[in-house]
Amino acid sequence: MATESSDAPEPYPEFLDHVRRVSYLNDAGSVLGWDQQVTMPEGGTPARSKQSAALSSVTHDLLTDEHVGEWLADLDGDDLSPDQRAVVREVRREHERATSVPEELVSEISETASNALPVWEQAKADDDFEAFAPTLEEMVELKREYAAAIDPDRDPYAVLFEEYEPYLGLDTAERVLERLRDELVPLIEEIEASDVDLADPFTGEYDPDTQEELVRAALDELGYDWDRGRLDTAPHPFSSGTQFDARVTTRFDPEDPLGALGSTIHEFGHATYTLGLPDDQYGTPLGESRDLSVHESQSRLWENHVGRSRAFAD
Amino acid sequence: MATESSDAPEPYPEFLDHVRRVSYLNDAGSVLGWDQQVTMPEGGTPARSKQSAALSSVTHDLLTDEHVGEWLADLDGDDLSPDQRAVVREVRREHERATSVPEELVSEISETASNALPVWEQAKADDDFEAFAPTLEEMVELKREYAAAIDPDRDPYAVLFEEYEPYLGLDTAERVLERLRDELVPLIEEIEASDVDLADPFTGEYDPDTQEELVRAALDELGYDWDRGRLDTAPHPFSSGTQFDARVTTRFDPEDPLGALGSTIHEFGHATYTLGLPDDQYGTPLGESRDLSVHESQSRLWENHVGRSRAFAD
Repeated sequence: MATESSDAPEPYPEFLDHVRRVSYLNDAGSVLGWDQQVTMPEGGTPARSKQSAALSSVTHDLLTDEHVGEWLADLDGDDLSPDQRAVVREVRREHERATSVPEELVSEISETASNALPVWEQAKADDDFEAFAPTLEEMVELKREYAAAIDPDRDPYAVLFEEYEPYLGLDTAERVLERLRDELVPLIEEIEASDVDLADPFTGEYDPDTQEELVRAALDELGYDWDRGRLDTAPHPFSSGTQFDARVTTRFDPEDPLGALGSTIHEFGHATYTLGLPDDQYGTPLGESRDLSVHESQSRLWENHVGRSRAFAD
Repeated sequence: MATESSDAPEPYPEFLDHVRRVSYLNDAGSVLGWDQQVTMPEGGTPARSKQSAALSSVTHDLLTDEHVGEWLADLDGDDLSPDQRAVVREVRREHERATSVPEELVSEISETASNALPVWEQAKADDDFEAFAPTLEEMVELKREYAAAIDPDRDPYAVLFEEYEPYLGLDTAERVLERLRDELVPLIEEIEASDVDLADPFTGEYDPDTQEELVRAALDELGYDWDRGRLDTAPHPFSSGTQFDARVTTRFDPEDPLGALGSTIHEFGHATYTLGLPDDQYGTPLGESRDLSVHESQSRLWENHVGRSRAFAD
């Protein structure tokens, strides 16, 4: 690959090694997060929060290391291949953002978020928002601090938005969503006012084992690579991992079998995107998703255009 | 606690923060190891090996950081409490060992060991030692290098032994084991030559689900804290974790139900030791096991003196 080529400018290989290490540690943090949501016994929270915070800290330290700034300055010329240029561009963006944020804040956000998980799970199980409200408030406050560290003069939401969508621009996203709203709301009202027959929702109870058989069969049918994946349950379905290990989760509500099916296919879409990233770029920005909108469009494509199609149901 | 007291010598709090971070990262590595042995899809190996190696590397970097040497020099006086003195002693030992070993070797051992796991699992499943022999040889070679880095003039086994038993001394261990051999071998021969009735082994097949019910009931009976633990299966039973999350694994052989029961109780012994470590010392040497012989004696105590007793069976 071009990113590995021996004719790269002098500091490039060392720079790339460093970049990969940051990425490997990020992925280790994601394994800790998966474990916390899927398998960890509840009592493990205090230790896990410390482990996650420490990992966030060292990752932040490595990303903001002064050598990275020096390498980026040295790699500013035009003697880079297109692949190398892309790697440098992505790392520069992350490095610049990260250097604005104090390490203590990164560590505190990580620890607070980890401690928040069981509080949220309990509040959700009890349908008791008030029990979670103070924790949520604390997280919002920390995220405001984080946004202010990066750019105190801009709307915090716009700053945080770039974490997920570095290039789309909040105004573009708003324009797209407004147009969708303008078209969809009347369409839905029209359908509701018409006398067309809508499908009846399922009624009755479907036990989780049967539902699990159904969603596993659906994943088989869709071609999920079990050698690089797993299906588990979590209070809120998510997928995480790398091109070597992209796991999906779902949840089973006895009264809503389509909920499990839909969320599984949705997460399968995410996992399929992740599994499609190039193996040999693992650890570099070329082996990662760059933004969330493409990721999410893939999950929606599978969920809505495949999962809800008559052909798939047949 | 004394280790946290505000009258500690000046660099102590900063030193302790650093020590805790190293420990949290070590524990994160142990979560990655658990996941690899218990839940990871097979295809995840290449990425996991990189993640584990990166974690070993940064942990090694932090442990060998020149600040640690400076703090240790500053904390050499006798103005330390007994707890603080113990922490400094243990960190000094680990720091001195680690500084002898090049980071690249630490990283290589970690990556090689991680890559070795699926090779070993396959060779074990196929009962094919030859398939694992080259990997084993590579690991032995790396461990020899590691021992030579620490002390090129001593027997590598003696050097590596101290990783698990820093204070016992190989000669003491050998003396104890020789005495046991001298007493036990004739005892076993005598029993075999006598006409005493030995218990008949179980015959027949016992399905894994029934065995799992049995070992879960045994763990309940023994008082395993499920809020801080889990039971899963792994090709070779092990336990790992912290005082907040000490998990056990077992394996089910249809023809040997006592194998699962014995290994589960054995690992329960390890977990019980770990769960007994003080919560408020998590991350310091006072919140960790110092050597393997006490750990192992606890697992053996539960396995052999409780698990094999008539009172427990009744």
